[in-house]
This record gives sequence, structure tokens and C-alpha cells, in this order.
Amino acid sequence: MHRVRFRDPAGSVRTGRRTDDGLVFGDETYDPEDVDVLPPCDPTKIVCIGLNYEKHAEESGMEIPDRPLLFLKPPNALSSHGDTVTLPAGKERVDYEAELAVVVGEQCRNVSEEEAMEYVAGFTCMNDISNRDDQDKEQNWIRGKAFDNSAPLGPVLATPDEVPDDASIELRMNGETKQDSSRADFIFSIPELVAEITTYMTLEPGDVISTGTPEGVGPLSDGDTVEVEVEGVGVLEHDVRVP
Amino acid sequence: MHRVRFRDPAGSVRTGRRTDDGLVFGDETYDPEDVDVLPPCDPTKIVCIGLNYEKHAEESGMEIPDRPLLFLKPPNALSSHGDTVTLPAGKERVDYEAELAVVVGEQCRNVSEEEAMEYVAGFTCMNDISNRDDQDKEQNWIRGKAFDNSAPLGPVLATPDEVPDDASIELRMNGETKQDSSRADFIFSIPELVAEITTYMTLEPGDVISTGTPEGVGPLSDGDTVEVEVEGVGVLEHDVRVP
Repeated sequence: MHRVRFRDPAGSVRTGRRTDDGLVFGDETYDPEDVDVLPPCDPTKIVCIGLNYEKHAEESGMEIPDRPLLFLKPPNALSSHGDTVTLPAGKERVDYEAELAVVVGEQCRNVSEEEAMEYVAGFTCMNDISNRDDQDKEQNWIRGKAFDNSAPLGPVLATPDEVPDDASIELRMNGETKQDSSRADFIFSIPELVAEITTYMTLEPGDVISTGTPEGVGPLSDGDTVEVEVEGVGVLEHDVRVP
Repeated sequence: MHRVRFRDPAGSVRTGRRTDDGLVFGDETYDPEDVDVLPPCDPTKIVCIGLNYEKHAEESGMEIPDRPLLFLKPPNALSSHGDTVTLPAGKERVDYEAELAVVVGEQCRNVSEEEAMEYVAGFTCMNDISNRDDQDKEQNWIRGKAFDNSAPLGPVLATPDEVPDDASIELRMNGETKQDSSRADFIFSIPELVAEITTYMTLEPGDVISTGTPEGVGPLSDGDTVEVEVEGVGVLEHDVRVP
């Protein structure tokens, strides 16, 4: 099932289903054009993974980590399918990074790898937008990664059975394919990530683990249209504005 | 005024006033012993400052930064006045760090230094508990700083007029003074911090900016009692358990 959160024309926030006919909540079916699509969950935190693909570590000139490289995006980082994302002003290089995002279903802590998937509600698409000017200069990637709207997320939450183990993860900019990889290329698997993160912190329902980006990252410019597609989820699309 | 959030004996979460008679909400006055004191706000994020005192930068062997060193603690990091904080297991060195914490009053973005205090609801005490074993080994301080209960916060929210510009910031462990400094020794002032952070991200009501720790940091052990005292706020007290 593809679950979608949206604000209906009356202003109410609904979690419904995406079907071929439209967005269904109760006995109403909405045309996607008539609603505001929201991120498919309401996280208290987004735990992000750096360098989870060998070829991306190579292109970044970084060594493959011996345990997951973690960083955080707070809720202010969220933006939605269909949004125009305003980038930080005056930066030379702000990049796209297509990622498969895991949505947590139940509160959990100290989860074993064997049990990890029991706490996963499903998957969605994320663009981990990265301000390299500041990221390269700071100890913790806050100005670089945690700025407003740096985490477009959506459009739907797909249940785990809908997303194959080797699901493709693609990014297109203005229609041209820039990233094209697969969940099968992760260095650390989703169960390994859940186990490692929950050794240190509680995950809450709706929290997101974004699993890192493959090779092919590159810069965003004013007016670009970005599509992140995860096989089995669909396409997250947003525009870019540089003030 | 000293505002305090607490869970009353019936289980309801209340925001009342701390007076000499007890905790007042509506026409009820509660004995502090009969309620669970909670953090005085409900943040979506805690934005922390590293190295905001010259002598602490010296003791850490780090250079004084030319702009604020930022890092994040998510809501899972919160704990309360009166709690027993369980530290991560199997670590050699987990430190206390007494801090003055700023609580945001209104949603804000791109705030000037001149306007910054208009968005500050008040101040409280925080212990920025730091797991050095992992902090020293990771790019972003997640295992080191964002673990569960690594941010005891409280006990009250004091309005800005109650906290002098040179308010003392002290930490006592098992009754012995370990840190003793003043808000006057900040490298970056509160208006400078608010302006810098809101250049990149929106602050929400209840969000916290923790302003960094002075010199004198040191290790926590099983059974320790920690008191963080900020002049004009009062004393945040918690115990420590090492599993």
C-alpha cells in the first residue's frame, strides 16, 4: 500500500492511500492537484548515513567507514513533494543526493539486526541537499546539512513488501539521469543501521533513517527540477530556487 | 516568573509557576515531591554550541572558533530534573558539561542581533553529557552527544529579566564545585548565536540553544549526583547510573 499524507482543500491533514483514481481518505477521493502533499511521516529526527556506497566514498575522496557515519537533520529540514526548495543564499556549491529513506513504525531501542525490520513501517524517497561551502568547513554538518528544507521527503510511504531488495535509486535533474544505483550496493544494510542507531538512541514512530547516496552527486542551480525515484515507491519531485 | 512543566498526580501535563509554596497551576498548589518535573519546554531540536569559553577551548586543546561551532541533540536526548540518567554502557569517559540554555519563545528565521532577544522566552539549566569515547572518533557528534538522556534540562524556565548579564554558571558533583564561570565569559553572545543559527534554520517555540560549557569538565561515574546551577534560574539536579 502507498500511504500519503496531505492537506485537503478544507485545510485538514489526512493520511490516506494513493490509488490510480487519486488520493483516498474515508469515502472521499481527491485529485492530487487539489491537495498539498506533505512528507509521508512527521519525524522527530532524521538520522542520515554518510558514505554508504563504495563509489560515492571514492568520488568524495573519503575512506569507507568501518561503522556507519551518522549525522542529523531536524524537523525544520523537511520539505514536500511538489515544493520549490529555496537554497541558502550566496553559496558556490549546493548538491543533490538521492536516497532511499526508511520510516520507523514503532518506538524502539537496542534492536537486534534480526528484529530490525519489525520496526520499519516502510520506505520513501529523500533528497539529502548538501551545502558544501559550509559542510567542508565545520566539525558537525549543521550549516551544511540541517538548513531549512534540506530534506525533501516523499511522496508516499511504501510498505516493505513493495520495495525489492535490489530496488533502483535514481536521480534525474531536468530530465537527465545523474544518479542510478541500487539498494543492493549499500555498505551497511538497513538492519545493521537500525541496530547501530538504536544502540545509542530511541527511534520514534515516524522517525526517518536516510540510507546515504550513491555516486553521481552534483550541483543544483536556480530553476532546476529534481526527481528522486526509488523502485516500488515512485517519484519525489521538487524545484529549486536560489535567492 | 519561574515556569515549570510537570505531570500532576492524575497524569496530566501542566505548565504552572514555581512559588515558595509549591507548584501552582490554576487553583491547585502541588508539593514538588508529589509530581514529576519535566523539561520546561518541548523542543523540536536542541542546537548546541561548542567551545564558547576561551578556557574550555584551551583545556580541550582546540582553537577558538571564528564562528560558532554548532551541533544538535534531538528530542530523545532530553531528561528531567530529578531523573537518574543511564549512561551508554562500556565507555571509558563520559563527561558532564554545565550550560546555560536559551528557550525560544516564537518561531523565527533570519533574526538580526538587535531583534534576537524578542524571540527568547527565557533561560534554564542544561547538562550537555558527552560520551568522549565516540565523540573523539566520529565526524559528527551523534554517538558522542545525541544519545538518550544526554540533555538533562530544567528545572524551570526563568524569564530574561531574572537572569543577570553576568549570571554565574556552576556545576557541583557530589557537592563539590567542578565548574564555576559566568555568562559574561561567552565568546559568542546570545544575540550572535540566535542570528547565526537563524541564518540557516527556523527556530520553533520551545526549541533550545545551549550556549556551551566553561572550563572544568570531567568524568561521570555510577552513583554520582550532579547539580547545574544558573544564577536566576536555580538548580537542575540528577543522578547517574552506569549499566
